[in-house]
Amino acid sequence: MNVDGKHFRTVWMEAGTVRMINQPLLPHRFEIVDLPSYQHTAVSIRDMTVRGAGAIGATAGFAMAQAALAARDQRFHADMAEAAAVIEATRPTAQNLFYATRRVLRAIQAQGSDVPRAREAAVATAHEIADDDAACCEAIGSHGEPLIPQGARISTHCNAGWLAFVDWGSAISPIYAAHRAGKEPFVWVDETKPRGQGARLTAWELLQEGVPHAVICDNATGHYMKSGQIDMVIVGSDRIAANGDVANKIGTYSSAVVAKANGIPFYVAAPTTTIDPDCPHGDQIPIEERDQDEVRCTWGWTDEGQFTRVRTTPEGSPARNPAFDVTPAEYIAGIITEKGVVPASAQGIASVARTG
Amino acid sequence: MNVDGKHFRTVWMEAGTVRMINQPLLPHRFEIVDLPSYQHTAVSIRDMTVRGAGAIGATAGFAMAQAALAARDQRFHADMAEAAAVIEATRPTAQNLFYATRRVLRAIQAQGSDVPRAREAAVATAHEIADDDAACCEAIGSHGEPLIPQGARISTHCNAGWLAFVDWGSAISPIYAAHRAGKEPFVWVDETKPRGQGARLTAWELLQEGVPHAVICDNATGHYMKSGQIDMVIVGSDRIAANGDVANKIGTYSSAVVAKANGIPFYVAAPTTTIDPDCPHGDQIPIEERDQDEVRCTWGWTDEGQFTRVRTTPEGSPARNPAFDVTPAEYIAGIITEKGVVPASAQGIASVARTG
Repeated sequence: MNVDGKHFRTVWMEAGTVRMINQPLLPHRFEIVDLPSYQHTAVSIRDMTVRGAGAIGATAGFAMAQAALAARDQRFHADMAEAAAVIEATRPTAQNLFYATRRVLRAIQAQGSDVPRAREAAVATAHEIADDDAACCEAIGSHGEPLIPQGARISTHCNAGWLAFVDWGSAISPIYAAHRAGKEPFVWVDETKPRGQGARLTAWELLQEGVPHAVICDNATGHYMKSGQIDMVIVGSDRIAANGDVANKIGTYSSAVVAKANGIPFYVAAPTTTIDPDCPHGDQIPIEERDQDEVRCTWGWTDEGQFTRVRTTPEGSPARNPAFDVTPAEYIAGIITEKGVVPASAQGIASVARTG
Repeated sequence: MNVDGKHFRTVWMEAGTVRMINQPLLPHRFEIVDLPSYQHTAVSIRDMTVRGAGAIGATAGFAMAQAALAARDQRFHADMAEAAAVIEATRPTAQNLFYATRRVLRAIQAQGSDVPRAREAAVATAHEIADDDAACCEAIGSHGEPLIPQGARISTHCNAGWLAFVDWGSAISPIYAAHRAGKEPFVWVDETKPRGQGARLTAWELLQEGVPHAVICDNATGHYMKSGQIDMVIVGSDRIAANGDVANKIGTYSSAVVAKANGIPFYVAAPTTTIDPDCPHGDQIPIEERDQDEVRCTWGWTDEGQFTRVRTTPEGSPARNPAFDVTPAEYIAGIITEKGVVPASAQGIASVARTG
């Protein structure tokens, strides 16, 4: 999508260097980071310079390509296995991470003992993963757009826009499509504590595309649902279990429960790479717990333009910080994928899940 | 309650000066503010130097006493009516504000044209309001404590502790009682965006009293409910309608809906002054919308100890900031008052509501 009129992807690779938008600096500064090795790229996933299901997947693919370029001829497969382990350890809840590392490993293994061709295959596969992601997201927009009524007021949580993918986004892609189709959607943007991806990233994206919106505290979403000011919800997902349960940013579950209590359809939009066919039930999805200081402190820009953090809790009070929750399938009106909209059920998931 | 071992009330009056804890500076600095006139005291309510149902009521009572001390003999009743209007305009959702101004006005009117006695009555009534508040809160603790099982893990939203009242608190009073009775309660403290009263104030109170707790983002409460780690919820209230609907800090409604979906009892604790018998239904409770910047920015302390605000949203993105929401009676397991625990129903409310 466009930034000040120029098209950007979230992450890409040029001559062995991974380049990405430095997302923690948004919306206040737009900056590109260069990462020279897979180890640097892995750190960018762990420290959330890049975040979001698809963008993490594409970054992991590029990191694997970097690893392949650097791996020693004599120990190529061992080095690649080690790189995959390092990359997979960065964000344990993110299904796309595993999808990407395994896809690159398969492409390498298909070249047998021909290391130069394996390197080439790794690089080509990484670019394919990124291109597929962008194409998937555009297709999600096409499939989801018809679900959006004229003038719909749509709630979304976290950032499942193009910054969470390579381009277009998942939850926001249908909204972009509806906006371009003249349906005049309005978006209620959940702030999405602790890290504020809604307030920082989704709001910034919508502003760039001219989509009317308002940022609200996560606490206010229920109030606007109850008072008839939200017509539908669309969120993204970090992992979808085989039964249709959905892991997504912490707070998604509460939004889904309150939406259901108010008869508001709750959609999940995600590429089918997000599906984990080996995970039978949402209860089996591991929930990452992140640093307490994400809850105790807030990062932002002072009136003088300084990027800094402020603490709000007492020094002696502990905090807990689960990054995701699981929304049971029964709360989900449908899952919008690049292959179409399917019910959140074992059958629905099986009809679109990729195999292998 | 105690601060560093010394007993404090939230607000009190000495020789015509209202003194209060400067709550926006907590938990990082403990400071007492002196307010020389009712106009200053009214501003302290509006800018939330003092906040919380009971503390606002007591402050409004003291402001009325200050107004009575300053009102001109010849225009005494006109000046008092004007003062009441100024004070009531500060926080339109807060029922205790109106309760306090009217109680002082009645005490004045009972003295007829005897202005010196009216002044005396205003001062005495203001002190009574504060003393009644402290006694009510202590009684709420006694009535609520038996509802708390041994080792209960209790969720609370916002600050309905002693800082929200004159002493003891409403929602936290039963927890203090249970803690002192050796029941070893644990408290999940909702951060309570946008202003973070849970993270700032409730956590600080619990720390001072040695009650084990953890601060969590409002988004995480549903996750802990669903995963069986919350046994009950106790929140306060800013206004209770005659049918048992409850207005409280934004986010309370969502917490109640998700609690119900998980079979977790959801209690509201409030003195009967919070009941508005003239308000038949929660839909009639006016919802204050506060400044957008409360959503766009977060106040806190830098690592260097500077109290400052940081912005998280893009400059061009609007925000919406409703301060309260309404939880329908059907979600409430019981209302804990100073007169006992009653059902959230017209009958339950009528059995404890004050008249006049």
